[in-house]
Amino acid sequence: MTDYVDIIRRKRDGEELAAADIEALIEGLMEGELPDYQAAAWLMAAFLEGLSLAETRVLTRAMIASGEVLDLSRLGRAVLDKHSTGGVGDKVTLVLAPLVASCGAVFGKMSGRGLAHTGGTIDKLESIPGFRTTMEAEEFIALLEETGICVAGQSPRLVPADDRLYALRDVTATVDSNPLTAASIMSKKIAAGADVVVLDVKVGRGAFFHSKGQALGVAHLMRSLGEEEGIEVLPVLTAMDQPLGHAVGNALEVLEAVATLRGEGPDDLVEVVTTLAAKLLVHAGLGWDYERAAREAGERLENGAALAAFRRWIAAQGGETAFIDDPSRLTPASLGKVEVRAPTAGWVSSIDALAVGRAVHALGAGRSRKGEPVDHAVGVVIAAKTGDEVAEEDLLATVYARTREQGEAAAAAVASSYTISGEEVTPPPVVLAYQLH
Amino acid sequence: MTDYVDIIRRKRDGEELAAADIEALIEGLMEGELPDYQAAAWLMAAFLEGLSLAETRVLTRAMIASGEVLDLSRLGRAVLDKHSTGGVGDKVTLVLAPLVASCGAVFGKMSGRGLAHTGGTIDKLESIPGFRTTMEAEEFIALLEETGICVAGQSPRLVPADDRLYALRDVTATVDSNPLTAASIMSKKIAAGADVVVLDVKVGRGAFFHSKGQALGVAHLMRSLGEEEGIEVLPVLTAMDQPLGHAVGNALEVLEAVATLRGEGPDDLVEVVTTLAAKLLVHAGLGWDYERAAREAGERLENGAALAAFRRWIAAQGGETAFIDDPSRLTPASLGKVEVRAPTAGWVSSIDALAVGRAVHALGAGRSRKGEPVDHAVGVVIAAKTGDEVAEEDLLATVYARTREQGEAAAAAVASSYTISGEEVTPPPVVLAYQLH
Repeated sequence: MTDYVDIIRRKRDGEELAAADIEALIEGLMEGELPDYQAAAWLMAAFLEGLSLAETRVLTRAMIASGEVLDLSRLGRAVLDKHSTGGVGDKVTLVLAPLVASCGAVFGKMSGRGLAHTGGTIDKLESIPGFRTTMEAEEFIALLEETGICVAGQSPRLVPADDRLYALRDVTATVDSNPLTAASIMSKKIAAGADVVVLDVKVGRGAFFHSKGQALGVAHLMRSLGEEEGIEVLPVLTAMDQPLGHAVGNALEVLEAVATLRGEGPDDLVEVVTTLAAKLLVHAGLGWDYERAAREAGERLENGAALAAFRRWIAAQGGETAFIDDPSRLTPASLGKVEVRAPTAGWVSSIDALAVGRAVHALGAGRSRKGEPVDHAVGVVIAAKTGDEVAEEDLLATVYARTREQGEAAAAAVASSYTISGEEVTPPPVVLAYQLH
Repeated sequence: MTDYVDIIRRKRDGEELAAADIEALIEGLMEGELPDYQAAAWLMAAFLEGLSLAETRVLTRAMIASGEVLDLSRLGRAVLDKHSTGGVGDKVTLVLAPLVASCGAVFGKMSGRGLAHTGGTIDKLESIPGFRTTMEAEEFIALLEETGICVAGQSPRLVPADDRLYALRDVTATVDSNPLTAASIMSKKIAAGADVVVLDVKVGRGAFFHSKGQALGVAHLMRSLGEEEGIEVLPVLTAMDQPLGHAVGNALEVLEAVATLRGEGPDDLVEVVTTLAAKLLVHAGLGWDYERAAREAGERLENGAALAAFRRWIAAQGGETAFIDDPSRLTPASLGKVEVRAPTAGWVSSIDALAVGRAVHALGAGRSRKGEPVDHAVGVVIAAKTGDEVAEEDLLATVYARTREQGEAAAAAVASSYTISGEEVTPPPVVLAYQLH
């Protein structure tokens, strides 16, 4: 019988655990032999004492071994995937997936639902009537073969140990750990069969990481975990001080994604999407270098090819596509529509993404507990972004809420999230760091 | 609703928690609102990040508030108590209680049962046929009034939070924490109504603490916690490298206690007992200083007064007293009696108390899980102690076991616990440090 107390004690004392120890913990967790309170004590010891790279690798593999692993080799092509550490207004996947597919690559992603102040891609996609995100592995693979794109909800058959462990981390203040986070993300990416993963590491006040140093730490760790398994992990650090693009809220973000695919996207979103796309496409077996990949991607946003791929994708996953040509089909909540206006003239010097994210979450766009429904119709559209010059009473943002009262509350929060300066402000960069290859 | 995750997070980040935080944790634990996994995460964070003196005081008080508190004021006299951090062959309470009572003081103690390699006083007392350790508070007080002595099992009505917390610490590798340990012990002492507590802090390879520095840390902490509540805590550091006295095992230790009360005790045990007794008696309201207290205690071991108090005590708690005059009434297990003999001539330079304690535990004298029965008849009697000169084949120790096989195994372990040197060895000191007042 495994002596779990001894394993916990050794981690508590800062020792590096053996592979057999970590495997025993994960097996014990899955077989119900490791009680939650012992897992929690180990998690806190691991949080505070850290995990070595070797331990993190073993943890990643042990979590993968807890469930099924997708074999995408019959596609005969590199499968591209993307992970974001979570941001406000982050609709990048909705644009990136059809964009790289329109270039001839295959994009397959299993995605989580949102928690806290950042929304989840699956929640956004489910704004589209009929769109299905729950499917068996066979259908996931068939969709990749058919359209070159599939974005599905995380399969409970893949890495079930991570579900258990994450649920426990969430209630024991052990979420913000680089090795635990890296193992969690990479185990799912590896199990889902990706060959190349672009990692959008958000940095700033609306993000999980508040400094580039923290973000680079987890990015390098995930790159190492990927290397071990023959997976190319491509980290890109992007800014998350203000919301990305203009729209924050499920359906509103889908509409902004469509506008972007039509060549009418906001600059910051377009820059992030083309950077991530180019990074992926270099590894898609097309023979493109970074410059060419960026150019080809930019062209497909302009010439309708990316939008056409989006239309095929949405239809293939059962979604109604009428909203693509008629945005009024995804009407935002209008009973509580409230405009936020500039209290003074000047330049927008910052918009607190965390505050905006929380305001939209409070409107019902996000969930506080797993399993709660989300409201697709509520949100905020940012009119003036950081660096924009505004006159007094100019529109800063529009809130879409279910009731006037909720709208007013969100409007007040959004108003407070703005800082307006008397001095001219340069728009901040959005892509902070990446490697060309 | 209390945000337990936030409390855990703050402790994890090394913050000092507010009184309300700690009170909320203990209340949540008792009301079933704080799940074990969150309590476990908090315990590990507290273990690794530490608790301030203020936090430890609040924790102590919150644990006391979880149950009843004994009011011993109607006795009109200082109630003396003693706590040992646990050692091998530690029968000190069995001698100390009647000794201080024979001097006219009141000794009242609630005691735990043994776990791991050190035995518990209650287990030892229960070797005596008929002896009752389970009683209500009223009877505890009545016995103190009647005979001046009572040693009862820990009442589940006192400090129930400690039972819950300790059970969790035991399985999450969070036992060896000075603040958690000090709060656990002192909450029970305070709730049981003691006025003066002598603290026998064992130091050495058979003890919880392996260095004087570690032991002093917890001793000072407990002294501070006591001061806050108007309780005098008197720490004495004593050696626990080799077993204390000769006997290790429940009934064997009772018999050695009787011999000591008869003035025939081993030197080390007599020294510890008289030191602890003198420390207590200075605070018993008798007007004695330390020198006089030590002298008076020594006399009562010699003149039969302490033995007479022992007899009254045992009878008052329902025990048969015939064994006091006829030790054969507490016969040790003899089917597996095995002698351990010196493999070579020389001086005993060490006897590993931990190894002896574990060997006796393995014979059945101790328990590995709460609630398991213990065997009162098994144990080891050490014949040659550290510093003794032995010839080849001289008796080192005698094992009393239920079967020959068990006896042989224990004998091998006891033999290995001995180191014999070719050079003369000075017997080590047993009382390492104490303050005179």
